[in-house]
Amino acid sequence: MDHFRPTLQPMDDARALPETPRTRLGRRPARGSHERAVIDAILDEGLVCHLAFTDEHGACLVPTAYARDGDAVLLHGSPRARWLCTPELPVCLCVTLVDGLVLARSAMHHSMNYRAVVLFGALQPVLDPAAKAAALRTIVEHLVPGRSDSIRSASASELAATAVARLPITEGSAKVRTGGPLDDQREPPSSAWTGVLPLSLQPGAVDDEAPAHVRTWSRGPRLR
Amino acid sequence: MDHFRPTLQPMDDARALPETPRTRLGRRPARGSHERAVIDAILDEGLVCHLAFTDEHGACLVPTAYARDGDAVLLHGSPRARWLCTPELPVCLCVTLVDGLVLARSAMHHSMNYRAVVLFGALQPVLDPAAKAAALRTIVEHLVPGRSDSIRSASASELAATAVARLPITEGSAKVRTGGPLDDQREPPSSAWTGVLPLSLQPGAVDDEAPAHVRTWSRGPRLR
Repeated sequence: MDHFRPTLQPMDDARALPETPRTRLGRRPARGSHERAVIDAILDEGLVCHLAFTDEHGACLVPTAYARDGDAVLLHGSPRARWLCTPELPVCLCVTLVDGLVLARSAMHHSMNYRAVVLFGALQPVLDPAAKAAALRTIVEHLVPGRSDSIRSASASELAATAVARLPITEGSAKVRTGGPLDDQREPPSSAWTGVLPLSLQPGAVDDEAPAHVRTWSRGPRLR
Repeated sequence: MDHFRPTLQPMDDARALPETPRTRLGRRPARGSHERAVIDAILDEGLVCHLAFTDEHGACLVPTAYARDGDAVLLHGSPRARWLCTPELPVCLCVTLVDGLVLARSAMHHSMNYRAVVLFGALQPVLDPAAKAAALRTIVEHLVPGRSDSIRSASASELAATAVARLPITEGSAKVRTGGPLDDQREPPSSAWTGVLPLSLQPGAVDDEAPAHVRTWSRGPRLR
């Protein structure tokens, strides 16, 4: 089995989330963290979250854009989306960043480098039009920093046609794997190449007219 | 609001999944599909799925590697992972690929190009050691095509320390957004640049010793 190494250094973050029964770091605790600095950095880099909730059919999943706003995650969508408009809907939210494929000598020790956050809580609808407008601006800025100033903000009728909810960041944890393969020390030598194939989300080409906030868009390490 | 255009062409796929109450394409049906060819292509490109289930605390989410094997999705993990080892656990599985950020004149019409699959079903534990070994091989090959032949396959004790489950692909749908921004036709002219910033998961550099299956790894369009 893997020889676990701590990948996260404790930071004595006064804002660390409390450990709860469902966020206790059971397996591979060295890879987990309740520190807000770790959690926030992952939330701030991701573009899409997955949101789980339970309805009359069972567990449901929605992939959706989001943004962190201080101590909450903001979500938006259609007012016809039941999950967005059910006050105090218990949800689980996850943001996962894939950083690389870990190639070992044995099939068993192949792995992935990743950073993930799981949050638990209850969605709070945001109804005030000014707060909704601010939330939409925050989501646009999260996706494309610098974008908001060059576009028209939402009109009253657009705000009425948009539902916004917030999930307070009060319960959750992060899990991070970094580094190379962890083949068993007793693993016989092998001619197989081992190492990490780094992966990252990269922007493609845009036309020359595109402004700086588009041309210089970057998330994580840049390849080019 | 968006002027919806069909982004998926019906293909008369005889293997299309049936429409069920929870997979009915309600909003933006032109973006949805039950066709297996659409669903399979998304499952085959993704690296990580998100799996939702309900436990005594409510909705839970796990991000995890997977692979499609014909008419099922294979999952693996620790035998201590309760979700993997509960026969017939009802789950919802989602794979989301982010293809681009869609920049419009108005905040409201900013969007994302993406391809996502949501599946519903009950996990079936895979207990037979030969079937488990085959599943692990399929998952390694899904992540890094061509890898399996150069590595040691799982030993009996490694197989005993690994849980495997399959989710039959029987209920679910895909949703796909492509193309540029869909600003309202009545939107006043604006000096804001509009268009799509393409995004894709790209491999970083590896050492020169790396074999072809590592050096030529690619998912979706290559930038370099």
